[in-house]
Amino acid sequence: MVGDMDRELIKKLQKIVGNGHLTTAAEELSCYSYDGTGRIFQPEAVAFPGTPEEIAAILKLANEYRFPVVPRGAGSGMTGGSLPVAGGLVLATSRMNRILELDPDNMIAVVEPGVINGDLQKALKKHHLIYPPDPASLKFCSIGGNAAECAGGPSAVKYGVTRDYVIGLEVVLPTGEIMTTGVRTEKGVVGYDLTHLFIGSEGTLCIFTKLILRLLPRPETKATFLVTFASLPDATRFAAKIMAAAITPSTLEYMDRTAISVVGAAISPPLPENTAALLLLELDGTGAEVEGQKRRLLPFLEQQGIAYRYAVDETERDHLWQARRSISPATFSLRPHKISEDVVVPRSKIPDLVQFTEDLARRLDLTILTFGHAGDGNIHVNIMIDRHNARELENGNVARKRLFEFVIKLGGTLSGEHGIGITKAEFLPLEIEPRALAVMKQIKQLFDPANILNPGKIFPNAS
Amino acid sequence: MVGDMDRELIKKLQKIVGNGHLTTAAEELSCYSYDGTGRIFQPEAVAFPGTPEEIAAILKLANEYRFPVVPRGAGSGMTGGSLPVAGGLVLATSRMNRILELDPDNMIAVVEPGVINGDLQKALKKHHLIYPPDPASLKFCSIGGNAAECAGGPSAVKYGVTRDYVIGLEVVLPTGEIMTTGVRTEKGVVGYDLTHLFIGSEGTLCIFTKLILRLLPRPETKATFLVTFASLPDATRFAAKIMAAAITPSTLEYMDRTAISVVGAAISPPLPENTAALLLLELDGTGAEVEGQKRRLLPFLEQQGIAYRYAVDETERDHLWQARRSISPATFSLRPHKISEDVVVPRSKIPDLVQFTEDLARRLDLTILTFGHAGDGNIHVNIMIDRHNARELENGNVARKRLFEFVIKLGGTLSGEHGIGITKAEFLPLEIEPRALAVMKQIKQLFDPANILNPGKIFPNAS
Repeated sequence: MVGDMDRELIKKLQKIVGNGHLTTAAEELSCYSYDGTGRIFQPEAVAFPGTPEEIAAILKLANEYRFPVVPRGAGSGMTGGSLPVAGGLVLATSRMNRILELDPDNMIAVVEPGVINGDLQKALKKHHLIYPPDPASLKFCSIGGNAAECAGGPSAVKYGVTRDYVIGLEVVLPTGEIMTTGVRTEKGVVGYDLTHLFIGSEGTLCIFTKLILRLLPRPETKATFLVTFASLPDATRFAAKIMAAAITPSTLEYMDRTAISVVGAAISPPLPENTAALLLLELDGTGAEVEGQKRRLLPFLEQQGIAYRYAVDETERDHLWQARRSISPATFSLRPHKISEDVVVPRSKIPDLVQFTEDLARRLDLTILTFGHAGDGNIHVNIMIDRHNARELENGNVARKRLFEFVIKLGGTLSGEHGIGITKAEFLPLEIEPRALAVMKQIKQLFDPANILNPGKIFPNAS
Repeated sequence: MVGDMDRELIKKLQKIVGNGHLTTAAEELSCYSYDGTGRIFQPEAVAFPGTPEEIAAILKLANEYRFPVVPRGAGSGMTGGSLPVAGGLVLATSRMNRILELDPDNMIAVVEPGVINGDLQKALKKHHLIYPPDPASLKFCSIGGNAAECAGGPSAVKYGVTRDYVIGLEVVLPTGEIMTTGVRTEKGVVGYDLTHLFIGSEGTLCIFTKLILRLLPRPETKATFLVTFASLPDATRFAAKIMAAAITPSTLEYMDRTAISVVGAAISPPLPENTAALLLLELDGTGAEVEGQKRRLLPFLEQQGIAYRYAVDETERDHLWQARRSISPATFSLRPHKISEDVVVPRSKIPDLVQFTEDLARRLDLTILTFGHAGDGNIHVNIMIDRHNARELENGNVARKRLFEFVIKLGGTLSGEHGIGITKAEFLPLEIEPRALAVMKQIKQLFDPANILNPGKIFPNAS
């Protein structure tokens, strides 16, 4: 398919999106050839449509001329969802970045897909509202991309993920028809739930052109704790115990010993010497709610003599978050590359998973660190390697496969918030049984008979 | 199709489900011929399978012999989802009523579809857990039926509806294959979201055989208020104001003037004379949370001189709920029959909707009362009629159509928690555009090419 877009076709595309909204210049194409995975696939052209109608026209043309169309938000995805693996056209939603409607009375926003998550949060602030999903990339990731991958974030433990906040859509189908789904009300059960079928479909079933979002009142206040433990099971048992006691933190992030070792320098005063795990725990809500939750939490900490720090103001709060925020870049002090996965296990199985990764690291002579969302069992496993070291690369890939197999054995799932994309496609059959996989492929075929929309994603050998 | 099930076929079915688990006796069939709509359709046989494999065998037979199979939970549906409108076999899930697994550590339950919602709640109580969806019929409705219709309840304003709590499924497809979907973890985005496609599909895409449910910690305490207003807009403005102030009641039920008039006798001491609307408002959570929310709520009530009653104990709480609980039967003191709808409008539009129903009642000389979930805009509109009075029946149907049209105009939806079934199928095109309707029909066709599973539901002229 690559290289198939001839001059005539480019002209037609140019006519659809208007002057200046299509590029085939090599230096520009390369800006749209990568994402958060670090993998690179060059598109043949990039279009910047401004309306659903333009997208519809592009998709009709794609069906006629059979070229791949790959929707792209901010390109911050972690599994290759926006990579043009089969060449063709990248359809960037960056021009469609308007907040079309903000209805504080009904706590609803209607946005275009290119709106940046953080920009929406800023616009909501003056209305004392929030859009809960808060991926780490929120300053640059787009709402459309969030919906395509069903993004989560630290606050998911309390507030849920993207699918819990997108209640209606306007989409363009792969065949070029514009369609609306869902509602703009809190409830609704009328016909099949196409909205949820599309959320998390990684840009393979439709292109979002409008998203109707549920909002929540902005929590008035927060209380942030950094809690340290002498063993990881102590930390996860503690997490399970407070959740069962109806303390629902808005953040419950944990780090294992290796993760702590790489960010140790960022934490001052230094952590207790025997620290083997830490939890960053944040409560939010009204003043009275946070006070109430604090009053419940403190006895858990104090009766068991668990060491903790409490942020009394915003500066101290930032300080406690510093360690968590600096993990991802800090890991590269260990090895130059990493294989990073976002598996989920039932909360009670976190110690088993971490024990497994420690054994695996020892057996394969690798450095593996884990951190992530202890509250919901969504653990980021980072297998640190040097890609140019053949043994490390091979062992890293073996570790990854064993990790996935073990996660499934624990009743877990391969992805909590990043999706499958291209990086996990070969492992999909570990989790999805053949019947379900066949049904999913039939659905793809139903919506996109010519397989022009984001081909090569999710399904093994799908391109 | 009716009358097609001959002796040979009945024998085959009997062999599948085993002795005593199939009936064709007229007096038994009539027990499975009705639901909450009061409409009656006689099946030709009723099967009580005990396993997914038996259901699979039944569906394979149905594809071979082309008879309709209609899944039925407790038959408490409000739109006809479980009615055998085309005859054939009713497949009752009542024998598949086991709680297969209860995992308090991970707050997960795995249940068969025939488990009664209230029985699950009872089993969870000793683990200090709840399954939030609480339809009014919870004492007798089944979890499978709840999932088929995406049932809600008063607590939806705080906790959401069935789709927010079913995270994984085992189903039998219409063609007789057993398939699993979803996860048993808090998060998961792996492949297309078939779980949500099936929730709310009203038994037309699959038969549930296992449901994996998310649970929540049981709220420790509740605080119940009965608040009265001199006008309905006062009541809804109040509801919007407290929700915006981050007071999220676990119940926020309202009643209009007509609804109050029929249950007035149940309330003592009598309500203030100028009462035109009331709100039943309940807070739940930990002791400290409820105290905190109360401290925020009371100034709203007191600064504006709004009259309210507060239940100091369980007895008084029951007393305040009495009025709300007795509405549905009490309405029949007005007229012998009713057309009851569960429309949803954006919260801020409730006054417009109620004003519209009052005008409509006057214009068509009907009694229409409204009550329901003010917190999420899900309003139960009861058009009271005598079916034997031709004028009332005709005007009732006119009122219903105008109601639906107005609801859509307000940005609302035809159903918040009851589904479409047969009673609203003809109105589906008011809400679902032709393209989306076509897509939904294609999905039905994909899953059920012979149209044997619950034919005649959701889609206009679908039988």
